Order: sequence, then C-alpha cells, then structure tokens
Amino acid sequence: MDGEAAPTKVIHDTVHGPIPLSGLALRLLEAPQLQRLSSVRQLGLAYLVWPGANHTRLEHSLGASYTARRIAEAVRAETHEGRLVEAAALLHDVGHWPFSHTLESLMADRFGTDHQEISRMLILEEGPFRWGSGPGLAAIIESAGLSPQDVADLVSTPPAPGTLSSLYDFEGPAPPPPPPGGPRRPGVRPFLHQIVSGLCDADQMDYLRRDAHYTGVAMGMIDIHRLVHTAALAGGELCFDRSGLHAVEGLLVARDLMYSSVYFHRTARIAETMLERAVDELTDDELRPVSQMTDGELLGALAAKGGVAAGLARRLKFRQLYKRALQVNFDELDPEGLRKVERLTGFDARRRAQREVEAATGLAAGSVIVDVPPKPLFSPGGKTSLSGLQILDDGKPRPIADLSPLARSLTSRRMFDWALLVSAPAEHRERVAAAARRALLG
Amino acid sequence: MDGEAAPTKVIHDTVHGPIPLSGLALRLLEAPQLQRLSSVRQLGLAYLVWPGANHTRLEHSLGASYTARRIAEAVRAETHEGRLVEAAALLHDVGHWPFSHTLESLMADRFGTDHQEISRMLILEEGPFRWGSGPGLAAIIESAGLSPQDVADLVSTPPAPGTLSSLYDFEGPAPPPPPPGGPRRPGVRPFLHQIVSGLCDADQMDYLRRDAHYTGVAMGMIDIHRLVHTAALAGGELCFDRSGLHAVEGLLVARDLMYSSVYFHRTARIAETMLERAVDELTDDELRPVSQMTDGELLGALAAKGGVAAGLARRLKFRQLYKRALQVNFDELDPEGLRKVERLTGFDARRRAQREVEAATGLAAGSVIVDVPPKPLFSPGGKTSLSGLQILDDGKPRPIADLSPLARSLTSRRMFDWALLVSAPAEHRERVAAAARRALLG
Amino acid sequence: MDGEAAPTKVIHDTVHGPIPLSGLALRLLEAPQLQRLSSVRQLGLAYLVWPGANHTRLEHSLGASYTARRIAEAVRAETHEGRLVEAAALLHDVGHWPFSHTLESLMADRFGTDHQEISRMLILEEGPFRWGSGPGLAAIIESAGLSPQDVADLVSTPPAPGTLSSLYDFEGPAPPPPPPGGPRRPGVRPFLHQIVSGLCDADQMDYLRRDAHYTGVAMGMIDIHRLVHTAALAGGELCFDRSGLHAVEGLLVARDLMYSSVYFHRTARIAETMLERAVDELTDDELRPVSQMTDGELLGALAAKGGVAAGLARRLKFRQLYKRALQVNFDELDPEGLRKVERLTGFDARRRAQREVEAATGLAAGSVIVDVPPKPLFSPGGKTSLSGLQILDDGKPRPIADLSPLARSLTSRRMFDWALLVSAPAEHRERVAAAARRALLG
Amino acid sequence: MDGEAAPTKVIHDTVHGPIPLSGLALRLLEAPQLQRLSSVRQLGLAYLVWPGANHTRLEHSLGASYTARRIAEAVRAETHEGRLVEAAALLHDVGHWPFSHTLESLMADRFGTDHQEISRMLILEEGPFRWGSGPGLAAIIESAGLSPQDVADLVSTPPAPGTLSSLYDFEGPAPPPPPPGGPRRPGVRPFLHQIVSGLCDADQMDYLRRDAHYTGVAMGMIDIHRLVHTAALAGGELCFDRSGLHAVEGLLVARDLMYSSVYFHRTARIAETMLERAVDELTDDELRPVSQMTDGELLGALAAKGGVAAGLARRLKFRQLYKRALQVNFDELDPEGLRKVERLTGFDARRRAQREVEAATGLAAGSVIVDVPPKPLFSPGGKTSLSGLQILDDGKPRPIADLSPLARSLTSRRMFDWALLVSAPAEHRERVAAAARRALLG
Repeated sequence: MDGEAAPTKVIHDTVHGPIPLSGLALRLLEAPQLQRLSSVRQLGLAYLVWPGANHTRLEHSLGASYTARRIAEAVRAETHEGRLVEAAALLHDVGHWPFSHTLESLMADRFGTDHQEISRMLILEEGPFRWGSGPGLAAIIESAGLSPQDVADLVSTPPAPGTLSSLYDFEGPAPPPPPPGGPRRPGVRPFLHQIVSGLCDADQMDYLRRDAHYTGVAMGMIDIHRLVHTAALAGGELCFDRSGLHAVEGLLVARDLMYSSVYFHRTARIAETMLERAVDELTDDELRPVSQMTDGELLGALAAKGGVAAGLARRLKFRQLYKRALQVNFDELDPEGLRKVERLTGFDARRRAQREVEAATGLAAGSVIVDVPPKPLFSPGGKTSLSGLQILDDGKPRPIADLSPLARSLTSRRMFDWALLVSAPAEHRERVAAAARRALLG
Repeated sequence: MDGEAAPTKVIHDTVHGPIPLSGLALRLLEAPQLQRLSSVRQLGLAYLVWPGANHTRLEHSLGASYTARRIAEAVRAETHEGRLVEAAALLHDVGHWPFSHTLESLMADRFGTDHQEISRMLILEEGPFRWGSGPGLAAIIESAGLSPQDVADLVSTPPAPGTLSSLYDFEGPAPPPPPPGGPRRPGVRPFLHQIVSGLCDADQMDYLRRDAHYTGVAMGMIDIHRLVHTAALAGGELCFDRSGLHAVEGLLVARDLMYSSVYFHRTARIAETMLERAVDELTDDELRPVSQMTDGELLGALAAKGGVAAGLARRLKFRQLYKRALQVNFDELDPEGLRKVERLTGFDARRRAQREVEAATGLAAGSVIVDVPPKPLFSPGGKTSLSGLQILDDGKPRPIADLSPLARSLTSRRMFDWALLVSAPAEHRERVAAAARRALLG
Repeated sequence: MDGEAAPTKVIHDTVHGPIPLSGLALRLLEAPQLQRLSSVRQLGLAYLVWPGANHTRLEHSLGASYTARRIAEAVRAETHEGRLVEAAALLHDVGHWPFSHTLESLMADRFGTDHQEISRMLILEEGPFRWGSGPGLAAIIESAGLSPQDVADLVSTPPAPGTLSSLYDFEGPAPPPPPPGGPRRPGVRPFLHQIVSGLCDADQMDYLRRDAHYTGVAMGMIDIHRLVHTAALAGGELCFDRSGLHAVEGLLVARDLMYSSVYFHRTARIAETMLERAVDELTDDELRPVSQMTDGELLGALAAKGGVAAGLARRLKFRQLYKRALQVNFDELDPEGLRKVERLTGFDARRRAQREVEAATGLAAGSVIVDVPPKPLFSPGGKTSLSGLQILDDGKPRPIADLSPLARSLTSRRMFDWALLVSAPAEHRERVAAAARRALLG
Repeated sequence: MDGEAAPTKVIHDTVHGPIPLSGLALRLLEAPQLQRLSSVRQLGLAYLVWPGANHTRLEHSLGASYTARRIAEAVRAETHEGRLVEAAALLHDVGHWPFSHTLESLMADRFGTDHQEISRMLILEEGPFRWGSGPGLAAIIESAGLSPQDVADLVSTPPAPGTLSSLYDFEGPAPPPPPPGGPRRPGVRPFLHQIVSGLCDADQMDYLRRDAHYTGVAMGMIDIHRLVHTAALAGGELCFDRSGLHAVEGLLVARDLMYSSVYFHRTARIAETMLERAVDELTDDELRPVSQMTDGELLGALAAKGGVAAGLARRLKFRQLYKRALQVNFDELDPEGLRKVERLTGFDARRRAQREVEAATGLAAGSVIVDVPPKPLFSPGGKTSLSGLQILDDGKPRPIADLSPLARSLTSRRMFDWALLVSAPAEHRERVAAAARRALLG
C-alpha cells in the first residue's frame, strides 16, 4: 500500500517482508469487503491480555495469500492454480464478524451460519449476508478469467477437523451435503483445497507466526520456509516430504500450544464471553448488519443500544473485566459432574444457565457469565484429527500418524483445563460462585 | 495483563519482552483514562500504508515507562525519582486524541490546546478536558506518596525543540510562561524532565523501535541497550557517555529517517488530512468529547454526523483515498512561490484554501484537501535543535553539536520534499490541479 | 568484553542482549580454561550444513550462566546460591574437547572419561586433565568465598536422563557411586542442581534459543521469559508453575525436534564421524593434549600427523565429505537385523566394523565410516525420561507425565530414522554398500 | 548445504532465509578456494569483544551473491548479467587472508598486494598467489559459458573511494593503470560493477545486516528490501529511485556508525594489531602460504614459529590482551603534533616506531604496539566519497550530495577519535606511555 496505482504494488508485511501484489489479488484487495478487515482484530479481545495483539484479519489474509502462492510454486502447480489459491486465501476470512472468532457461537445460534458460509455469500454475491458497493467480488474474479464458484469452494470446503475455524464452529449447523457429483469442482485438484484449508495449510502457517510476532509468545515460531520447501504432491493431494516431517510436527505442536496459551487464555475468554453476552442483547434486525461492521462499529452499536449491552461494552473499553467466580477443571469432575457440565455446551444452554444463576443471586441481567468449552473439546483431543495429513516417505505417501508419536499425542491432549468457568463483577464473586455451584453442579 | 490481581504483574511486550509492573504504575494502568489508549493507534492512519501498524498508544506508554525506569536505574536516580519518571512516562500520552497526532492542528485551531496540555488536565483533574470515573489520576498518585504536580510538570514541560510532539504543535498557543520561581518544581532535578521529554528520551527510544517493529521499516532499529547503558548525569542533567555517542547519533538519524519514510509518508498524510477535514465538520460541542473517544468511536461519530463527515469516514474505512492532484516540492519554488505557500500554513489558512479551490472547481465541500507542512518546517532543519544534548567526554559535558557532524547535518536537513500537496477524488485530479495552481500559486 | 577493567562489565549477547558481569563471574571469564571455549564451536561441524552455525561454547556458557542467575532470582534463592549457579553454569562446559560433543564417544573409548568429568578436574585442579596457568579455577572460586567442591558437584552431577550430554555419554563409564552420605553436599539445595543440569535447565534454555538463532531453524524458539517467570520451588526442588506448563512442553518438544533436525542431521553426522575417525589415528600421548586445544589446533594436529588423519582433515577443511553408501532405517529391520546392528554400538565395535568393510573392499584405511546410534537410542524414547520434572498445580508438585500427553509422547519417539549409516568417498559408494551389507547385516 | 547432490540446493542463511543455489554458483561454492572461507571470520578478532561475532566470509559471500542477484532482477538485467554478478559477488572475497582485513596493511608492506588482487589471481588462475586442486575457478566459470576475465574485472575493479576494502588498502600500491581501451570490458555494463563494488552495493547491504545480527549492535539494521526494491538503472549506471533515498541515507549512515562502533572498536584494534605484529615475525617464505590458511591454521603457524609470534598468539587464544598505554585523540593535537603522528602512518613507519619505544623502555621485542589510523583518515571524511552515487529524481539521475545533507555530513565526519594508540602488557603501561610520548610526540 506504498505508492499509487501501478501494475505491481509491494506491501511491507512485518512477518514475510515485502509482498508483491498484482492483477487479481490487487483488485480484490481494493474491494470494501476486504478493506473492512483492516479494522477487525485477528485475535478478538486478546489485546486486553497482550497489548501488542492488535493485528488484523487483513494482514493475516495477505500473509496467508502470499504463503499459499509460495506453496503452489513449491509444488509446481499450474499458473492458474496458483492464482486460484492466492485469491482464495486472500478471501478466506472475508466473512468474519467483528473481533473474529469471538461471535461464532452466537452467529450459529442466531442465524445458523458461520464465517465461512458468509465468505461464500460475499464471494458469490448471493445470500442474505452479501453486501458491498462497486463491482462485487464475483465480478472481479470473473474479469480475471477465474471461476467465483471455484474460489468459493476452496474457501468454504467443510474444514478438516482440527483446524482453527472448526474449533469454534462446534454449535453451527451440519455442513451442507455435497452437491451431486461430489463436493469438488471438476478440474480443481484436491491439493488446492489443502493449501487453503487443510491440516497443515497456508492459513495456519501465517497465523501461528503472526500471532507469535504480535503477542511475543515464542511458541508459534514455526519454520515456514522449511514447510514451504518440503511441500509436495502425491496423486493430486498435498503432502510433505519426509525431510519436512519435523517442521510439520513443529506446526502441529505449535498450534496446540498456542491454543493452550493464547487462544483459550482464561482472561481473554472472560472478555470474549462478556462481548458475546453484550451482543446477544441485539435483536436479529440489529444483529444482521454486524457482519459488515468493524470492531469499533460494533462497540458503538452496543453503546447505542444502552442497558446491559452498553454497560458491558463500557467495561471492555476500559478493561474492567469480570473476575473468575468459579472454575471447575476436568480433572475435578466425576462422570456425573462431567455429564452435568456437558449439558451446558451450546450457546443457548449457556444463556439459560446464566439466567438461572442471575435469578438465584438476584443480580441484574448480564452480571453472570457462564463459559463451557465447545462440545467436541469435552473428550481429550476431540477436535484433533490427523486423517489426511500425509508424509512422502521414499516417494510413497504415509499417514503422519504412522510416523509421529508426537502428532499422535495431540489426539489425546486437552487444549485446556477447565470444564466450567463462571465469572462476574469482582464484588459479586462469592455470591455467584455459591449460586452457580448449586444451580449448575448441584 | 496476564493473570489476576497480584502485587506484581508481568505484561508481555513485543519490543521489550516481559515488563514487570507493581504499585503505582499498576494502579495507574487500571485507570480508564489510560486504558482508553488501548484503542488509539500509535501511528494514526499509517495502517492504511503499512498493514501491521496497528499498535497503540497504550503499548507505547508502557514501553516508554519501562525505558524511563531503566534509564533512571542506569544513572542511579533515587528510588522516588525512578517512580516519578515511571509514572510520568506512563501518563505522558494520556491526553492524546483518537488517531494520535492526526488531529493536533485542528485541536490547536479549535481549542487552542494540545495533547500535552490535556494530559496535564487529566493528571491534575482540572480544566475543561478532565474526565473519568473512580479515583482520579491525581488521587492515585497522591496515595502513592508522590506529587501530581510533579508528574504533570514532567509530562507537560514545554518540549525541547525537535521532539515529536513539538513538530505537530506548530500552530498551538505559546506555552504558558513559567510560574514565578522558575518552571521546575523545587526538588525535581532536571534530568527527570530529560528522561521523559528530551532530545534523546525514553519516549523516542520506545517509539522508534516500536514503529520499526510494526511497520517493518528497519530504519528505526536503534540501540536501546547501548543508550540506556551509557546514560549518565552531569550537574543534575541527563547526558550520555562518549562511548554512547554513536548510539545517540543513531537515534537522531533514525528519528529523521522515520519522519521522512513513515511519519510524513505521502499516502498516510493524505489519509490523515482527510480525517482532519471530516472532523472539522463537527461543532465545538460535538468536538469536545472527542478527546475521550477511541479511534472507533470517532469514526462512529463522523458517520452519525452524516454529510461530508460521513462520506470521508466511509472512504477511510474502505481505503478509498483521495489521490494527489498537485504536488509542489520545495526545490521547485522560487522565493516568491515559497512566500505564497508559507502563507498557507496553519489549519485555518489551509481550510480557507480548500474552500477557495472547491469554489473555483465547483466541487462539493470536502472534495479538496490542501496540505502544507507545519510552519517551522519551511526552513530546512527548522525544528531540529540540538541545544541541551550533552555528551560526557572525559567526565566533562560537551554539546553534541561540537562532536558530531552527523548530528549537525540534521539541523539543515528537510524531513520531506513537498511544500504543497493538494489531493482530491481520483476522477477530479486534473480539474483540482489546475484550479489549485491558479488559486494558490498564481 | 566492551571497555576495560571495571567492576561491572557488560557483554553484548546476540540472544539475551546486554549481560552484566562482575565479581567472581568476571574473574572466571578471564581464566584461560574458559577463554579457550571462544574457539570451540558449539555445534561441532554443523557449520558445514548451516553456514551460520559458528557460535561457540563461550557464548553458550555466558548465556547459560545468565539464565541460571535469572532463574535463581525468580525462585528467590539466597544471594550465595545465585552466585553458585552463575559460576557453575559458566563453567559447566569448560571440559569440552574441540568441536564439542563430536569426540565424546572416542574419549570414552580411549580414556574412559567425558567432558563433565574433565570439567570437574579443571574446577578442582586435580586429575590427569587439569591444566592452565595463573591462579586456577579453584583458587578463584575460593577467593570469592565459595566452595570449588560445590561448584564441581553442580557441574558434574550425573545428568538427568534425557539431557543433551547424556545422549552422547552412552559409552562412558558408569558414574562414580555417590560418596557416603549421599551425592549432594550438605547445604546445597537440590534445585541448584536442577537449574544447572536438569530436565528443564538453564543449559537447554540457552542452547535451544542460541542454536535456533545461528542455524535459522525456528524450532528452537522456546519461550525463555515464560520459563524463567514460572520457575518455582517445592521442597527445595525446582519445578514450574502450572501457568508455565505449556512453555515447558514447548521446551521439551523443541529439544526433540532440534535433535531430529539439527543435532542428528545426516550430513553433519557424516562430517563428525569423519573427524572422529581422523582423531582416532592419534596415539594416546598425542590425544591427551587435545582436551586443551581449540577447533583450529586440533585440525592442525591432524594435518601434522599426516596419513589418514591429514587426509580426512583436509576433506573437512574443504567440505569434501564422504557420501552415504548405505542407510538402513529402524523400520526396515526385523528383530534379527536389529540385534545385528545393535552389536555395532560403541566406538570400538564401529571401529572394528569399519576395518572389516575396508578389508572386504580392499579400500585404504579410513575410507569407510560406520555410524550407529548410541545404544540407548535403539529403543524409541530410550533416553528421554521425565522423572523428576514437576509442575506446581495449586501449590502441589505433580509429575509432568501426569499432566502432559505431549511430554509423554516424547518417551516413545525416536529422534531419528536410521539404525545404520555407512559412508565413503563418492566414487566408492556402490562397492562399500555391497560389502557393508554383507559384512554387517549378512 | 542441506541434502545431497541435486540440481538446486537450498542453503539456510540466518540473515536472508533460504537461499536457492544452482548451476555455476553451486559449482563455485564447492571449490576449495571458497570453502576455505568457512573458517575465516568475517570480523577478524572482533569476537574478543562481541562473543557472537564468529560469522565467516563464506556466509557473507553467499549473502552478497544472493543480494547481487536480487538487485540484478530488480533492475531487469539480462539473464547472463544476473549470473555474472552472482558469480562475482560469490567470489569477491576469495582472496582474503585469515582474519579478513586484519592483515591487509602487512600484505601491502610485504608483498605490495591486497585481497582483491589475490581474488583476481585465484579467479584467473594466474599469478603468485594462485592455488587449489581440481578444476580451477576459471575452468568452472568458462564451462558455464561466462568469461573469467569479466568476473575478475567485476571483483577487482579499483574500488570506489569510501568502500570497506579501500579503507584498509591505504598503504597498498597504486592500482594498476587501466588497460588500453579503458578499464571495463566491452559488453560489461557499468551497473554490474556498481552492484558488486560500489557506494551502495550488495557487499555492504549484506555485511551491515550480518554484522548487526552477529554482534547485536542494532546500528547496522539497514532496509535491504527497500534498497533492492528501489534500485534502478540510468544510462547503464546503477542508481536508486527517489523513493529509496532514505534507505540509501540509512545505509550510508549505518556504515559510518558501524565503523565507529564495531570495525574500529579500540579493544578489537588492539587485538588486531597484536596479530599483525605476530605475523610480521614470519619470513616471506613462511608468510606467502598464509593466504591459503584458515584462521586456525595461521594461529598454529604462529605457535610453531615460537618466540614473539608464539607468545602473542597465545595471548590472543586466551584473550590476554595488551592494554592501552597511551591514547592521543585528534582533538588534542596541534598542527605540529598532527604532522608528527601522520608520519607514523604506514605499516613500516609503525614497525619502526614500535622498535624505538621498545628500545627506549628496554622491553622485549613485541612488547609495544603502535597504532595509527590509515593515512586517508587523517583528514575528516577523507575516505568518504559520494561521487557517482545517483538518485533518480523524476526520471533524472542526480548526485546524492545534491539531495542529502545527511550524506554530505559523512564527508566531514571522523570515524573515530584517536590519532595514536600505543598498547602494551598491563604491567608496563606507565613505562611505555612515558617512552612513547617522548619518542613519538616529543
């Protein structure tokens, strides 16, 4: 974004250095749907824990796009395939709501959709969440000789289990059944999907490094160069050469450690559930336009709403966070307790639990936040699957699970400790703890 | 901000690593006036040029505070002096408006004040711009046994010429005359002022490194360790040992190069002047509360205002920037031309020039932006002064100007090329260029 | 090493930044035994694979010492305890031979000793490998009021299984039985041992980060700040707070990945075994003084020896490495084959195997290198033990194995693939492969 | 150097990341003349001041070659031109003696040559300093269809004044007169010379960043990406676009600051002059082969020589450096004093001065080291020339001196303070100081 109209533009990225952009990618970048992401923080409210975590979905989209292009080059994809993954990775997060993943559960509850589905609507210019002025994304893609449908399919492939988005999508609807003739478009080779959204994809390569850069948490420092350099194809599928196995293991472990340390950090979760609670005050008509807002616009809408929404938004602005009133860890629960807590998964179950504890304590609406991990995380490793991740060993693809005890261990690792986390204003902690224990575990 | 209430809290900073905080600093950090800065970008609208430049005044304030404390330790200041500079550096930017320096000229025009004066009001809890709930900053400072007046004086010392803030303050009022008995409080040794706001201070040490980290522009990579390590005192004044001369030269040059490359980047300036123009649509009563807003809240207020303000805000949201219509460089101007352009300095002169060109072209209000460097920058090096920056040579302080041709050269260097920059929507560039040339230079 | 005699000296380290040194540490640093390490490469011959891997044992010793001191501060050790671990970590590698671990097996074969035992001799100024002029290390330590015996015990504690040195020590003698009354000196609390040489110690914290910095392999980027900050004591033993569990997991995994990727890199192993073969040409009397040499001096001694030794040294100088002739991986071996290869472990067994293959091919002495992993590595995870690594969970120490599937997985992970690696000059690969297969596996 | 024989090899560089190599560059890299540089430290004895400064001429040669190729691509050079600068930059330092620049003055005194001239001999396989086995460099270059003469000319162009090598060459012979028809080969466009050896060339871009990485001195952190990206051609000459002016200024200043802080660091100079003194003990016949040695081999040769040479080498091994006995700064000298000191410039003058002081004190040979800056550095800025460095302003090349006061200031800056530095063993400092003052300044 340095300099003015020119066939090639170089954008200086803090992670990858100079990223040259031209043609389709450059025109997509100028679309309002993508530019909105420059005011949507990549890590939601994590900046309240790591003050440097203000990076945006836009930078990440640029970085993922650049990485996807590099992988395509490394595996000697066709030129048009390279342009396809470049465009798809650039657009893969265009449907994100403000504060990124924070509102995914609420969206699923209220509209039965998720950010990938909305990305699809924006790319295809169809469906209730489409928006934008000027030539739409589909028109831009078509004018470059590519198929919007191909791009949309790469973006909204039902994600491989264990990828970032699927960890949050737990309460969303089942993915639509594949169209007759199979989920993939003729002529779109499978590795293109795997570059954009797979178990070891451009998306993760970028966000792990980027989140490490902006939080200062070194655990995300994966070896992108090695990953790109050892990427290969086998039967049209993306895999990695044996000489890159350690780098793949490094990425898988880094992802798990970043979840434990950053993405599910307790204080950040409290802030995120406070926001979720505030946004739940909006009516459906007030809520629908949120998908077009920036972080700042959403906070403005909450302030304008008044009441509980405004109060919580004000607390977030000034970092006057609720405090942990009750935390119950998985290893404290017997099977009966586990069943009780598991019943609280899902946005609506949590909503009802909150009201119940509020009623029991006589506290005002919005004073109690009940947080429970997504259902798949109730069994250890429940969301980590390795199926489909292949290592090329002497020219023959083998499942990584056969080769790596490290990778296998992740399928039995819990990403975090607590099964139930109830928070409230500091002055009400004791009251809320007692009532919550009675109401939810009694 | 990791973990909960505890006597010492460690905040992970991307530039300095772990920063331990306790006591007064920790309590100040929790004040709403300071927390607001977590949503005020350090570099205004520079993120439209460098997508990673989303860092905030809060991180910078923490970093400046940490650096100030390290310098105080290096020069073996008294314990209470160390706490004083720690608090002052933490609060030094608390009066900044949204988008940091972007609105300084407008503030000066409309209210005759600047961010340092507002910082002072917030610290002393007096004056028209004070705000906040809970115990005020003054009360927190007093409860720690320090004097709010001392902190305020360290923060709002008329800045040394050549420092960042003064470069923007050009159109503000003259600083208030020193109170009888001299500008400095009895017992506050001069080096404390120089640590917080001097020619080679903690503020600059932090922001140069931080801006380099988040833009990826390597020119700001100064040697903080060396600067801190060679800081010394002579007669109560801050100076640097001869063995740190090169590091001081490095900082001075880095500052100049960052101005040329980043702070006065042309595209970023166009965006900033668009914002300035939009905000000028607000009435005084609408404008006053802006000093309490975040970046997002200001953009929301502009949208709510409608008309020109909303249109420009929308353009900024989607990065639909005006384009350069006319650029006249200093080296193209004869003395007569220079005089003509110099008459356009000052917010009000630019405002009138804009209207004049708009009238001449028949374009709608808000369609033309006239940018002219601050008056002091009309003569090369006009704002760079080295007076007071001392190097300790064999135990004797000597002015750096005596020792360093590099430093001296900065006093005759222009930080940028253009004397006049007129911008407008892309489709009106030619019309605006012709009219502006006639109206402003004819 | 910046500036001249002064009570405190600041050394600029590329990993930790400025390291202040004074008193005992400074005097030890000036001893010739320690200065020799400035010409001993940390990673042996790995610079033939990663051209940047020229860092030295001296830098690492400084970094480990600094980290040990920081951990001691974090756990609020007594002042003299802090000085003790600082000194011990500074001296812990002082007994290393040229090219660091490369010659460990040979040493064990020829002298029945290892670098830790030699470190002990140098510190206590006793035993066959002591050397040095000026005041010895023991005298320096004593003059600072500490006990050389305490320092030596911290350095040469039989290492915890799974630490770097023990991975190479496989063929050394059994550690001496603990002296009557237990292995630890009265008054030396156990955590001091664990800081210097434990499962998550200052040594590893430094070398993983440092090796990552100098090879560019990101997998070693561990979170030192978090590790130091969450270090704690329980009953006099070092442990880590639950909030640091992920950082500890990160270190354990990083260590394993660095072994796989860097420390056991095949090309580097070929170079190292070539050096081992060359040095084996020296008589005991020629070999003994090698422990006092630098890398360059050893290569000079080999050149002076002539014959096989000189030829191999010349090849290393010009990177004319032997090529892999035969590689047999663990997963290719049936139990019978595994038994056959396992019989080749140990320096002398490899020596005899080499001669056998040389005889079978008629090639000159020194033309065939047989490499087999250390015996403990024949069973997966054979050298990784987690016993003794404790996590403080709600104030109660628990074995990390109870909490971390990731950590447990390392106990069943092989650090590398091959069980047998035979190399030879490129032009003899086929001949050697055939003969080696017959002689060693037939 | 990762993996085995393959058409493209990727080398992991700590500064540039993965560097792909193939064809000619790969074959040259395998030549013994180039591999020797893996044991020649880039910064001579600077590792005695910065323990991390063990990087080698080989890494730098790879980095310079990679950067040269990138510049060639940026200016859209022909394919064969790109290969030419890649090869030339890879070979540009092949003639360096052990410890890089340390012995340049001695070489000039003893053999009337310098490292560039020797590089030329090695490339052309002619002249007294040629050596090597296998196919020579000329043969390798020819087999790739390029002219060894072209490569040699790019490498040994009389360097532009102000470049690194020329700062050390001060006492060497005048460069040979250009051959009839001009110094440049027909068909070799001038910018190729300027990429390899100019005022803002690939060599400097690499070494400034690399030296910053390995010393931790941030002043060398130049913006390589920006420099490469703004490189351009005008009339066949290399220049930089106006938008890269600040990056060029950054490089020029960084170079000066690195000279002041690192390359002429006083302690490092003392070590280097001690080495120079030791090597001067060798006879011409002993000295000539030194050009083929590694750092370690040279120290071995000095030890073998015995006497003064061995004593000094031993001091360097153990960092038992001489101490400053007398330092006289430029600003302490009147014109008469300046004339006296200036007479001591040149290796032979210093040699005689040393003997004189040794005689006056009765100290043994080798006890006194007299250091005086190279003659051109006696006038401020004496070696910094900006002539030929052009900035492309609106498509028209202009001398940088016209545009940049910063750059101009460097032509009047002294890179360091002292005019005379006498050092000696610590115990003789006073005696030597008095005698030196009398003998050299009296």
